[in-house]
Amino acid sequence: MATGDRAPVTIIGLGPMGQALAGAYVAAGHPTTVWNRTPGKADDLVARGAVRAATAAEAVAASPLVIVCLLDYDAAHAVLDPIAGALKGRTLVQLTADTPGRARRSAEWAAAHGIDYLDGAIMTPTTTIGGPSAVLLYSGPADVYQAHKPVLDVLGGTATHLGTDPGRAAAYDLALLDLFWTSMSGLMHAFALARAEGITAKDFAPFAAGIGHLMPIMIDTAVEPVDSRHHPSEGSAITSNAATLDHIIHAGEERGIDVSVVRAIKASTQRAIDAGHGGDAFSRLVEVFSEQGA
Amino acid sequence: MATGDRAPVTIIGLGPMGQALAGAYVAAGHPTTVWNRTPGKADDLVARGAVRAATAAEAVAASPLVIVCLLDYDAAHAVLDPIAGALKGRTLVQLTADTPGRARRSAEWAAAHGIDYLDGAIMTPTTTIGGPSAVLLYSGPADVYQAHKPVLDVLGGTATHLGTDPGRAAAYDLALLDLFWTSMSGLMHAFALARAEGITAKDFAPFAAGIGHLMPIMIDTAVEPVDSRHHPSEGSAITSNAATLDHIIHAGEERGIDVSVVRAIKASTQRAIDAGHGGDAFSRLVEVFSEQGA
Repeated sequence: MATGDRAPVTIIGLGPMGQALAGAYVAAGHPTTVWNRTPGKADDLVARGAVRAATAAEAVAASPLVIVCLLDYDAAHAVLDPIAGALKGRTLVQLTADTPGRARRSAEWAAAHGIDYLDGAIMTPTTTIGGPSAVLLYSGPADVYQAHKPVLDVLGGTATHLGTDPGRAAAYDLALLDLFWTSMSGLMHAFALARAEGITAKDFAPFAAGIGHLMPIMIDTAVEPVDSRHHPSEGSAITSNAATLDHIIHAGEERGIDVSVVRAIKASTQRAIDAGHGGDAFSRLVEVFSEQGA
Repeated sequence: MATGDRAPVTIIGLGPMGQALAGAYVAAGHPTTVWNRTPGKADDLVARGAVRAATAAEAVAASPLVIVCLLDYDAAHAVLDPIAGALKGRTLVQLTADTPGRARRSAEWAAAHGIDYLDGAIMTPTTTIGGPSAVLLYSGPADVYQAHKPVLDVLGGTATHLGTDPGRAAAYDLALLDLFWTSMSGLMHAFALARAEGITAKDFAPFAAGIGHLMPIMIDTAVEPVDSRHHPSEGSAITSNAATLDHIIHAGEERGIDVSVVRAIKASTQRAIDAGHGGDAFSRLVEVFSEQGA
């Protein structure tokens, strides 16, 4: 299946991430075929040695392994559905980010068309791809993953196969993105609150980094209560956390800052308190979020 | 001012943090006088050598330095206002957590009554107090801080004097707590989303720790755009971040998870997009949060 000693690879979708993926294969000497709805996105890759396919079907026909990275699964299936026949007997690696449910439906679609299917998630920025700090997650049939692992490993860094459920990689991806973007929102809100009090981001950053360093400890501490669903308070209880959130809301309001996100968090603590769990640890919020009616 | 070679210290308020503060002074051999509305909270400290004062006024009279740690400034002033005369000529260190505005009003009250005043914030848990990992912030007159620094340093770890504005310590404190509790909310929501997809906290934690390790990098990266108020996108733009937040919302809804906090964050990105800044970096949210009407 290789031209020379490198297996051919096709990349569909040449946004910033798709370009990074294709660039890693070109750099590693793999025959790399690319396709994008807007063909101009391939110019730089073609200059470096990639082959521009005229159609998605032609791109798919060029390689036994087809990697797709588009905006979401609606965009992906708009491209893939018409060329399901061309994909038959090949392996499709879906690196488009979307929900676990859509990943599972995409796997069912692939199975119905005789297409081997892996669903993956890219956890690190475009600049990491092909280097040691890239982090990728995969899920789907173990034999399909093992067969293509050497080629997938060209994308660099750490790759983990999370099991056969095709939705698993997307589930990890979204839960990690949930943590990441909520934390980033908290960071930007903290910068806004600090600025309103005359504190520059430069002055605030070293202290904020201290909070960042606490997170791995807080994560470790939460594992046992979350998995056992028992949330005894060893330090501060939710009632105290709620009082702190009220201080943040009041301080923000005094300075005319939007506090809608903090209000939503405070409301979640209030649901725990109203349900009689005010003496529990903050990790009780997992139960609040899990049980819509709790 | 010392009995033997250790200066006397009075602690008012014996919740978990007040007890930790008093415990550090007892352990360091300082004559330590304590008072709490519920006197029984002092039993353990008295057994270790602290002196229980019968009234708050008696407690204040015992030491030139009085440290207060209560639920909030309403609780603190309910105790302090009636004994302002007894505090005259002494130094009051307010370690009660509250808003910057209330810290400044508390400093004005102290000045009006001839009381030297420092406002402080304790950034680390009770278990750190008196040890190397404690982190404390102070603000208020530099000479008052310098005069009491040796005694305050008994509380351990790293202490920083942030300047003369008495609200400064509370401002740092609340902005850091904003980052911390918003991140913690994101962590608990991520655990909830992972659980709904059949992923245990134990399996998820190592990946979550990877996100935690990213935060110091994200903090450093945001300093320049936040302070310059220019937010060019170098990686993903807000429109892409908003699409990710939508994936999280949809995945949560598919599993019946409460997504109110993520919705509030998404709404903030939407305000940036609607104002024409969809191509900016996520740090644009500092401007969204800062400008209520933006």
